[in-house]
Amino acid sequence: MRVESSQELDIGVLPLVLDGERVMLVDQRHLPFKLEMFDATSLDDMCFAISDMVVRGAPSIGVAAAFGLACEAVRLSEQSIAKPEFLKQLDEARVRLQATRPTAVNLRWATDKLFQEIEQHGQDFPDLQTIAKKAMECAKRILDEHIETNRILSEFGAELVPRDAAIMTHCNAGSLAACGWGTALGVIRSAALRGLNPSVYVDETRPRNQGSKLTVWELHQDKIPATLVCDSMSGHLMADGKVQIVITGADRIAANGDSANKIGTYNLAVVANYHNVPFYIAAPISTIDPHIQSGKSIPIEERHGSEITSFGGTNTSMDGVKVYNPAFDVTPAKLIAGIITECGVLRPPYEESIAAALRQKK
Amino acid sequence: MRVESSQELDIGVLPLVLDGERVMLVDQRHLPFKLEMFDATSLDDMCFAISDMVVRGAPSIGVAAAFGLACEAVRLSEQSIAKPEFLKQLDEARVRLQATRPTAVNLRWATDKLFQEIEQHGQDFPDLQTIAKKAMECAKRILDEHIETNRILSEFGAELVPRDAAIMTHCNAGSLAACGWGTALGVIRSAALRGLNPSVYVDETRPRNQGSKLTVWELHQDKIPATLVCDSMSGHLMADGKVQIVITGADRIAANGDSANKIGTYNLAVVANYHNVPFYIAAPISTIDPHIQSGKSIPIEERHGSEITSFGGTNTSMDGVKVYNPAFDVTPAKLIAGIITECGVLRPPYEESIAAALRQKK
Repeated sequence: MRVESSQELDIGVLPLVLDGERVMLVDQRHLPFKLEMFDATSLDDMCFAISDMVVRGAPSIGVAAAFGLACEAVRLSEQSIAKPEFLKQLDEARVRLQATRPTAVNLRWATDKLFQEIEQHGQDFPDLQTIAKKAMECAKRILDEHIETNRILSEFGAELVPRDAAIMTHCNAGSLAACGWGTALGVIRSAALRGLNPSVYVDETRPRNQGSKLTVWELHQDKIPATLVCDSMSGHLMADGKVQIVITGADRIAANGDSANKIGTYNLAVVANYHNVPFYIAAPISTIDPHIQSGKSIPIEERHGSEITSFGGTNTSMDGVKVYNPAFDVTPAKLIAGIITECGVLRPPYEESIAAALRQKK
Repeated sequence: MRVESSQELDIGVLPLVLDGERVMLVDQRHLPFKLEMFDATSLDDMCFAISDMVVRGAPSIGVAAAFGLACEAVRLSEQSIAKPEFLKQLDEARVRLQATRPTAVNLRWATDKLFQEIEQHGQDFPDLQTIAKKAMECAKRILDEHIETNRILSEFGAELVPRDAAIMTHCNAGSLAACGWGTALGVIRSAALRGLNPSVYVDETRPRNQGSKLTVWELHQDKIPATLVCDSMSGHLMADGKVQIVITGADRIAANGDSANKIGTYNLAVVANYHNVPFYIAAPISTIDPHIQSGKSIPIEERHGSEITSFGGTNTSMDGVKVYNPAFDVTPAKLIAGIITECGVLRPPYEESIAAALRQKK
């Protein structure tokens, strides 16, 4: 795997690449200005990379955390410890990884899945090296499945995109966020490949500017026309009839369809609803958390106020200002026209369509 | 008149001060980091100051432009020209000032009012010096009337603020914007003086960050608790029941109540409406444009994309990105619970209440 533009590779820039035994992340904090790699092979470095948003986007975080756990298995397998201690330390690593960010469920999903495989292999194989090797194979399989899943859901989503549509999206749900191809941007990319001639309004996505930094860059790689606007301009655009459809990703979807995504998604959904513009979520089934009945129970991460009060080292406000900086919000199911997944486009009532999709995936 | 904090002066920081025969503006581009004055005595400098937003906020722009025209009258009166030429050149200056920014109607209102007075004095007095002196007196009267008007409308507005309310506002409608006291912030200030204990959610107001730079600073001067958030967080706050009332200013109000204000106001109004949080406009009657029947006819200024793509000299996106940067949007009357003016709080149907208020002011 190498970092290449989608012009050659056709799946966008992968946020995670393997370099021998090292796990390297594209440092998304520095795009589009610098394409730098961050070595996240050690558990400490991977935990830092997730919490500091070197890697971000719910699916990419899940894949990265799986590799973090697999790398830790490799490291521990090279020490002279007994299997119970090996498993105990990996369980602690799993807990540490899951604590790096609270909202995206894919992080928990991927690390739980990998840990279950490790426990299973622990019963099947005597030596830690074999177990660690199997863990690394599982992490690679999770990555490959993500790319495949993204492609399938994008094809379902492309069916919803009218010809010559202007699509509005929020944050970054492209290959950087979704470990290849993309969810919301994957749908747009598939629509472009079908010759539907989409164009995209990209909002900045304050305070981290994933829209202006990452989404604009990914669309440019794909030669899909993009126009940058501020988060607050969606209503003005829609009142002028300039947006035909809104598609975003999601970080966690409750059993009833309520969807947590990057802060500002909820405003966009309310504004779209007011203008009768259909609002869609695009996300793999692994984003659904069947243990959470409604959005009210989704934990919302609160990040440091400095994300709002400084930009590129320049202050945006006065010293000592009080700041509230929730990183996500919850869009209630009633505002969502459909949830685009690899099992098809789920429609209301979501309790039923989500339950059916989860059964299909088992 | 001196620049002093509201702790001494009790009317906030005046955006415009007279220093002998010079008109000095607080350079609002550099607040809250530096309190610098900008000499806008010449017509060229005043036109630049308005278009580059050294001075901004619809009422302040109107007052500044009036002084710009009065200063030009003084300059021309010192030249040996005939009265018709004097009036012709002042009329050209009026047109130039009015062209600096298209949306705020106060600019046109104040310069038209001053020019009419000049024409009248041209009939009453033979010498240009006397006419110019009268023009300067008229500009000062417009300034004084603004402060008085702000105070009166703020008292009407304070009646609407519940005790211990969290108020959300957008952009800056304080003394910097409204030439003393303030409109939306004037209401909040009056509510604080009444002991109603208001607190304020201030959004950044991308792309120029008037919220994070100016409103936070003005509230700090007044010791009113303020919390900075991003423009996209209003829905999340309201869904959590954290906002009781929204108050913003306006740049131009049509005869039917549709109100143009800083881009993002419309999103805020739609989101407030969805959560049944009352949304109020606070603006002097001079903000009403009776020649415009509905918001559809209000011209919306489009500003340079660099306002979005760079912050403090740091790029926020990739080079060459296409940008759409409307500076204002229109909130339809049906989303507005009331328009707070010096004639009282106007209520729907606005065609009637606005017409009655205009008659009262004549």
